Formats: sequence, structure tokens, C-alpha cells
Amino acid sequence: MNRLKETKVQKINSEHNTAINVNGVHIGEGYFTVIAGPCALENVEVAVESAKAVEKAGARVFRCSLFKPRTSPYTYQGFGLEGIEILKTLRQETGLLLETEILSTEHIDSLASEVDILRVGSRNMDNYELLKGVGRTNKPIILKRNMSATLEEFLLAAEYILSVGNEKVILCERGIRTFETYTRNTLDILAVPALKELTHLPVIVDPSHSSGKSSLVPSASKAALAAGADGLIIEVHPDPIKSYSDGEQSLDIPTFENLMKDLFEMSNVLGKKSFTSVLN
Amino acid sequence: MNRLKETKVQKINSEHNTAINVNGVHIGEGYFTVIAGPCALENVEVAVESAKAVEKAGARVFRCSLFKPRTSPYTYQGFGLEGIEILKTLRQETGLLLETEILSTEHIDSLASEVDILRVGSRNMDNYELLKGVGRTNKPIILKRNMSATLEEFLLAAEYILSVGNEKVILCERGIRTFETYTRNTLDILAVPALKELTHLPVIVDPSHSSGKSSLVPSASKAALAAGADGLIIEVHPDPIKSYSDGEQSLDIPTFENLMKDLFEMSNVLGKKSFTSVLN
Amino acid sequence: MNRLKETKVQKINSEHNTAINVNGVHIGEGYFTVIAGPCALENVEVAVESAKAVEKAGARVFRCSLFKPRTSPYTYQGFGLEGIEILKTLRQETGLLLETEILSTEHIDSLASEVDILRVGSRNMDNYELLKGVGRTNKPIILKRNMSATLEEFLLAAEYILSVGNEKVILCERGIRTFETYTRNTLDILAVPALKELTHLPVIVDPSHSSGKSSLVPSASKAALAAGADGLIIEVHPDPIKSYSDGEQSLDIPTFENLMKDLFEMSNVLGKKSFTSVLN
Amino acid sequence: MNRLKETKVQKINSEHNTAINVNGVHIGEGYFTVIAGPCALENVEVAVESAKAVEKAGARVFRCSLFKPRTSPYTYQGFGLEGIEILKTLRQETGLLLETEILSTEHIDSLASEVDILRVGSRNMDNYELLKGVGRTNKPIILKRNMSATLEEFLLAAEYILSVGNEKVILCERGIRTFETYTRNTLDILAVPALKELTHLPVIVDPSHSSGKSSLVPSASKAALAAGADGLIIEVHPDPIKSYSDGEQSLDIPTFENLMKDLFEMSNVLGKKSFTSVLN
Repeated sequence: MNRLKETKVQKINSEHNTAINVNGVHIGEGYFTVIAGPCALENVEVAVESAKAVEKAGARVFRCSLFKPRTSPYTYQGFGLEGIEILKTLRQETGLLLETEILSTEHIDSLASEVDILRVGSRNMDNYELLKGVGRTNKPIILKRNMSATLEEFLLAAEYILSVGNEKVILCERGIRTFETYTRNTLDILAVPALKELTHLPVIVDPSHSSGKSSLVPSASKAALAAGADGLIIEVHPDPIKSYSDGEQSLDIPTFENLMKDLFEMSNVLGKKSFTSVLN
Repeated sequence: MNRLKETKVQKINSEHNTAINVNGVHIGEGYFTVIAGPCALENVEVAVESAKAVEKAGARVFRCSLFKPRTSPYTYQGFGLEGIEILKTLRQETGLLLETEILSTEHIDSLASEVDILRVGSRNMDNYELLKGVGRTNKPIILKRNMSATLEEFLLAAEYILSVGNEKVILCERGIRTFETYTRNTLDILAVPALKELTHLPVIVDPSHSSGKSSLVPSASKAALAAGADGLIIEVHPDPIKSYSDGEQSLDIPTFENLMKDLFEMSNVLGKKSFTSVLN
Repeated sequence: MNRLKETKVQKINSEHNTAINVNGVHIGEGYFTVIAGPCALENVEVAVESAKAVEKAGARVFRCSLFKPRTSPYTYQGFGLEGIEILKTLRQETGLLLETEILSTEHIDSLASEVDILRVGSRNMDNYELLKGVGRTNKPIILKRNMSATLEEFLLAAEYILSVGNEKVILCERGIRTFETYTRNTLDILAVPALKELTHLPVIVDPSHSSGKSSLVPSASKAALAAGADGLIIEVHPDPIKSYSDGEQSLDIPTFENLMKDLFEMSNVLGKKSFTSVLN
Repeated sequence: MNRLKETKVQKINSEHNTAINVNGVHIGEGYFTVIAGPCALENVEVAVESAKAVEKAGARVFRCSLFKPRTSPYTYQGFGLEGIEILKTLRQETGLLLETEILSTEHIDSLASEVDILRVGSRNMDNYELLKGVGRTNKPIILKRNMSATLEEFLLAAEYILSVGNEKVILCERGIRTFETYTRNTLDILAVPALKELTHLPVIVDPSHSSGKSSLVPSASKAALAAGADGLIIEVHPDPIKSYSDGEQSLDIPTFENLMKDLFEMSNVLGKKSFTSVLN
């Protein structure tokens, strides 16, 4: 980890922890913050239904992806900027923060003005132009680990954002690529405490993409909390089998509600500030 | 997972779970069972001190490795059969079950008569002669996943044991080999719920070899419990830096005691039968 | 490989092979074409010296990277667009084709007008906006495999380029990420014949980034030719230890000259059209 | 590679190369030696037919596996010691050396007295009891790399054999486990020149298990020769689709004959001593 010396992501001492406060929603500082929503936005009805349901269950941020990077050019690629109207509706109908993925420097201004948190996906972790672009905004940035990135490379990618002035970076472990095929990727659960040793930035986990199977998502989520994560970004859909993408890894609403109850009880035992307390 | 059809390891339905009861110590059935002790036996004093300490903290089984497979032929290889005298002392001084690694078919009789549980290490997961050998004993067998084995291969290795008549197999996830080097291996935490879907056998986790760093072991242990594991096999040493092998991944006694308290509280929330209840 | 059905990259039958002809330089069609030059352009003197040397040794294309994506934001990032003047000088001083890496859609017009071949690096294999951008030019595109991409994912990334109208795609195997650390990456040599089975596109190999050690580059290069590759992209520097980046994997001129002689002799035995014949 | 210091496998200088001479068949010393035969022995007719065919095509050693380690306990496990009669017949009918896999220390005496070369398979690379056992014979030992072993671990496994007195070890690269699934494993072709830098022992390649597809075996074989290997161990079967195991990766006789011709021509260009010269 020599290359982390004299970087801004580096942890100076065990008390050095960055907390991010977005309109009263805390990420880090002992909170456990849940970001939830469908894999990709499909239409305003599903979006609003999903948002209200996850808000009621205790999520504080809504995952609303307008752009959906896909391995094949012939699969659903998302709404694009036309979906911004849906964001406005979500803003009116719920109290959730809005979070969205950004794929191109061209969209930074349009999206940064409408959402609260920007996400750089794992495919773009090494897209340095994009990292510098979001680094010039004042929005919190979720940076997902590339599925073949070491922790050092992950942190140096974050450094691209910090180096141009934006220190509000949230690291997201989402599974790495290994030989195992039963799961979509291998959730590197020890990346959570390892990153906590190396950096002061908050660390969240994506239990949906790492597992790729909804049956494994609750276990992945609880393991993330137990391992010390500051939150989750999780796929929830009112009707997963009708989902345009990634339905097999999305939780339905009742399963998500039950999971949130379990996480709430665990978080008390683990000394976390209750992740729903800010609601009350 | 086609090759699991018509195997004895396969899970028939969601209620199909094998529990193992060794002299009153349960593995499976909702219990969380902790196996602890030094990486390798070094002398009778350290062994007894370690055993009493882990017993007091709530462990039910003592890890006592007489043979220590090592990558280099020039590093400490363990006591060998001469260590059996130490096992007899441990039997007198504590109420713990004894567990040891077996490296060769020649040692099966000698070891099976002295210990309660035999362990086949990850290097020997594909040593089919050894698997069939331990399959002919009536001892519970801990089978550790080879660090490059898929879950299907892991289960087919277990099938070698079941196929010759011994159904008391405990699967142990201990980390897989990936490109990440900050941890010794990558703990495949989702192997726990995945194996629970595929097989009726109990599943435990080795948080020590997977992480390779004592600082990460508590997080790995809690994540294992949260993900649904039936127990842990964990390295504990009264003075890790003086340990003959793997000192950097062994917990000292106070850290182990604190971890056990945390696990105890978590296990209540998670609906586990208390892992120390059998003591009381 | 189900997702390749009805794609444009797919091979229809064993005779279906795309050849690319750029101003008389052939890629595919039984030619073995060598692209060589420094990792990144440093100054006009080194550029011209390198270019003349690799041309004399039999290379037909000059690797001239103006932009250099780097893991750390604090290492040399390349010349940027200011280096275009150097390209003009190279054009005057040599008969080589020019090839350069493109990092951002903003630079497509500027670079496409000055060079003969554009390269999308492995970090950007999943940067779909960039793929579609270069797909709208009429330049041949070298697409490097992401170090964690399966062959199917690699081909679907190429499909993004073909899908918008540019069929002149050259696939480049450059090593994948594995647990082995002696080499920088693991050269997946069987990707060459495997891709030849799956697609009609030409396939070249980067022996420099895959091995990361100049001592291994000649073996990697010969293996690529023997495995059926259509060419190489190889790092050559007049004084590797003074190189700004990747010096440890660059060949010096005499080593490159010897390698080219060996490749020439091998290519005759292997039934390749001589890779220097087009020069004579 | 610190752990290689003061080992017997370590290369002292660039001239330090061990050559093995088994009854006039050379391995190392600039020869390219081909070991060929079916995956497992099936019956005496197929064995003799295969042996005569591979001998005629230029192979010098016959692969005759009596024991076949299989992932599942319910697939064909080989002839066992009863196949020794077939070995005697092969000895009478051909001039080939005989080579076989050894799975257990119990079989060392029986097999060492009947064959010329013993093989320790990749599953047993870490079976230290077996390594020491074959190290006490005076037979050349082919040691196959475990599919998750680093080069350092591979060499330390070889050291177990050398450390007890047997220096006639032939290292075999047979593919490593990665995320790519088109091939059975990923042939780590650069392991060949890398091992040649690190050790004085000969290095051969298994193109059959690494690729898992007969269509890729010729390319893998040529790449091995081009990368500097001292030979091949390759699966050949008179009727691959009727093979009891691994038929999909076995070459038929005509394909093997053509491959041998290509290798012969290449070996001349590469300055190898002709691999069939010892026959003439």
C-alpha cells in the first residue's frame, strides 16, 4: 500500500473518519444508511411506488438510475436524461434523497442539479476523466469498486476525486470477479474492515450485484452490517420478475421490509446509531 | 450444479438440515459453535493455557493441530504423533472436545482414537484417498474448502466422505484465492448462505486463514454469524507474536473474549440458540 | 456464449475473417503486423528515434500515446493534445502508420484527424459512450480486453463499436488479472485461438503489459505468433530505464531487432505472409 | 520470491539447467520431448493402438494413467493396480518410456518398479507426504502445478521432492483457475519463461487440461514450444468421443500427427535439438 502515502484518502489515525451529511441524512459517523430502489428507472408509477415503499421501510436514499450500462448494446439501456421528469415527481412525492449513476462527463451538470448523490459505477472506476469531472462538483459521490480492482487501486481511483477538491466520497464494495460462478460476483466482505483501516472515507456494500441472487441478499446485507459497513445500496422492486433488468437479484417489498427490521435490531446490538432514528 | 443430482450431500427441501451432536456439543440445528485454539500445538503449557482460556470464553471445541502442512519444507511442520500425549493432558484438564487435522491415511487410526473431530485441510480437499479414509471412521469430519474450489467441487469432495458411509461432515469456508493481496485470501462470505441452499450439511467459517490479519478477524467472525454460519474455527494464542506459525492472524485471549461477547449478543438477536447455553 | 447470437462480431463460418487494410498495411488475412513504440510519448527526439528504429526492424505502425491513464493521479499522465505536433513530425520523418489511445469522447475529432488507428484501452473497455463515439469514426479501432472481462464480454464491448457502423475493430489480448504476481498480469494465450473461433475480427497481443517484465516479452511475443495472433502491440524504448512509465516492461532497440528476426523466421514456418513483405 | 533463497530448486546463474536422461530420452538440454497418450487407460487394445500411433508420430513417452482422480466419486476412477499387466504389454510392444500418475504413498513401490516416470497431479501438489514419498525413489517426477498455486508455491512443492534427495523433477504448467470459462483453465504461458528464470528444472506444458477443448490444443502446444518449454504432456486417443474421460480435450491420431510435424519444423527454427532426432 505504498502508493497511498501522502494521499488524501489515507487514514491518519484510528479516530480519523469522514462523515457525510446530506440534508440531514448521515453517512458514516456510526449511522447505517440504506439506499434502495429498482436497478433502473422504468416508469413514473413503478418509481413512486418503489420509493414510497422503501421510505416506509426505513431507507433514506432512493436509487434512481436513468442510465444503465449494459454488457450488450442490445439490452435495455435506461431512460436517459428524459427521466429527469421522474426525479422531479419523486422529489415531490417522497422525502427521500435521490441518487443516480453518471456515465459521461457531458451529463454532470444536468444530473448534479437534480439529484443529491452521484454514483460512479464499477465499469467506470478507471474512467479518470469522469472521476475528475464529478470531483469538480460539490455532490457526494458513491464510487463503486471495479470488479478486478485491488483495494489500493480502488483508493487511488477515489483519490482522483479528492485530488480536485471533492472529499465527499463514499466507497462501495460490490463484489469482485473470481472463479466462483454460483454467485454473480464474490462479495469481498473483508474489504469493509480493510478499507476502514486504510481510509477515513465511509464504506457501503451493494449486496445485490455481488450476490446476483435475491435469496442471498439478506445474508449479504446482514454480513455487511456485521463487518462494519456504513450502509447498503440495495435493489428493491415491487415486482422483481417484471423488472427490465436484474430482476433475479432484486428484493420484493415484503422481503425488504423484513430485512430492514432485522438490520435495525442488529444495529442496536452492534452499537450503531439507529439507522431510522433520523426519521423520527 | 448438475453434478449434485442424486448425491447424498444434496438438500432435499428447505427443512432438510443435518445436525451433529458430539457428546452434547451441537453443530447445526440453530447452534453457533466455536472451535478455537492455536494454529499448531507447540508445547503442553501453551496448549493447556490456551484451552482453558477459550473454554472460559465460551468455545466448545479445542483446535489442536499436531501436523502442520507448510508451503516450504524448511518451516515448522508440527509435533506429529508425539503430540498425542498433549491431547491426553488436554482431555484431563478441560471439558473441551478435541479437534485435529489429518494429513495421511496412515494416521487415521491413531488420531481417530484420541480426538472427537477430524479435520481435512484445504490442501487435501482433493486427496480422495484421504477423504475415503476418514469416511470409513465414525468421527465428525471438518472438510475445508480448497482455495480454488467451486462450491460444486467442494460438495463433491464432501460426497467422497458420505459415499463411503460417514454423513457427519461439517463444511468449512476458509477463503478463496483471488487477485486481492491485502487479505491472505478472500473470505467468500456468500458461500455460507449458498451452501445452505445446496446442502443439508452444517457450514462453519475460518475467519483466521481467510483474513490473515488479526485486526480483521472479529469483523470476519461477526459477518460469518450474520450470514448464517453454524460456527467458527478460529486461531487463538496466549502470545501471538511468539507463535510458531500464523501469529499475525491469531487473536490474543482478551480480544477473543470480547469477540465472544459480541457474538453472543448478536446470536440472540439473530434467533440462534445461545452458543454457550449447552454449558449452563 | 449465447449472448453472441445475432451479433455482428460473430463468426459465421471458418472462412469468415475480416482483414483490415490501412494505407497498404494489412491486419489479418494471414499477415503478422507489429505495432511498436514507447509506452507514452515523452518528447519529439525520443519519439523520432524510436519510430525510425522500430520501422527499420520491421514494425509497420508506431504506438504513440499522448494520453496515459494512470492508477494514481500523481504520476505522469502524458502529453495530452499538445503532443499532436509530435505526430505531425513523425508523419514527415517516417513511413509508419500512427496509433494512439483515446480516453474521452471530447478528443475523438482531434485525434481521428491526425492518426491512422485509435486505441481504446483496457480500462475503458466498458466505457460505452466512448465505444459508440469511436464507432462513429471510420478509423480502425484497437480494443483492448479489460483485465477482468470474459471473452463474451470482450466481444460484446466490440459489438458496441460495430453496432453503430464501424466494423474495423482489432481485438487485443493484454493479460487478465489472476492471483499470480510474478507477472504483471496473466497472458491468456488461449484467448487468441478462442477468439478466432468466435469472431471474424483480427486478434493481436500486447506482450508488454501482460508480462510486465522485459525479460519475458520475447517469449510472450513468440507464443502469440505461434498461437495464431495477427500481430503485436509492443513497448520499445531507446533507453528503457529512463522511460517515464513502464520502463521495466519495454524492450530496448537491439532486443527488439533480435525478436523481430526470430518472429520473421517463425512466421515463414507457420505459413504467415511475411510481416515485412509489404515493405519490400 | 524470498522463500526460494537457499533452496535446491533455485537457479544459480543463467547456465544452470538440469537435464534429465531416461534411457536415452532427454528432457531439458535443448530437447523438446513429447509425452502423449489417453487421459486414462481403458483396455489393452486401446492402449497399444494409442502407444504405437504416438510413437510413430514422434512422441517418446507414453502417458498411461492407471489411477484417475475425479471430482465426483461416481465417475470412472481408472484401472488401479490391475492395469499393471497392460504396462507390461506396452513395454513389449513399443519402445516408449512409460509414465503414470501416482495418488497415494501406498502405491509408490508397485508403480516405481513398472514405469519410467512418475507423475504427481495438480490436486496433489500440496500433498507433502506424497511428495516426500516420490522424493525417496530414483525416478524422474513430473510435478503438475496446482491450479491455484503461485510460481513460488509450485517451486516450494518441488523443493519437498528435492529436499529428500531426488533432483529429477520436471515441472508441468497445466493451466490456472481464473474467471474465464470458455477454456477449462487459463494456460499461464508466461509461467514457462518465468520458471526458466527462477529454477534450473525442466518445464513442460499440458495443453490438454489447460484448454479443455481439442480445437485449442494445437495452438496451446505451439505456444508452449515458442515460449521455451522443454516438452508437452498431451492427451491423444484413437477415438476421442468414445474416451471414458476428457474426450473433448483429446486429439485424434491424425490431428496429433499434423501437430507433431508443425512442432518439428518450429523446433528447428527455434534452435531446439530436433525432438525426434534421438529416434534416428
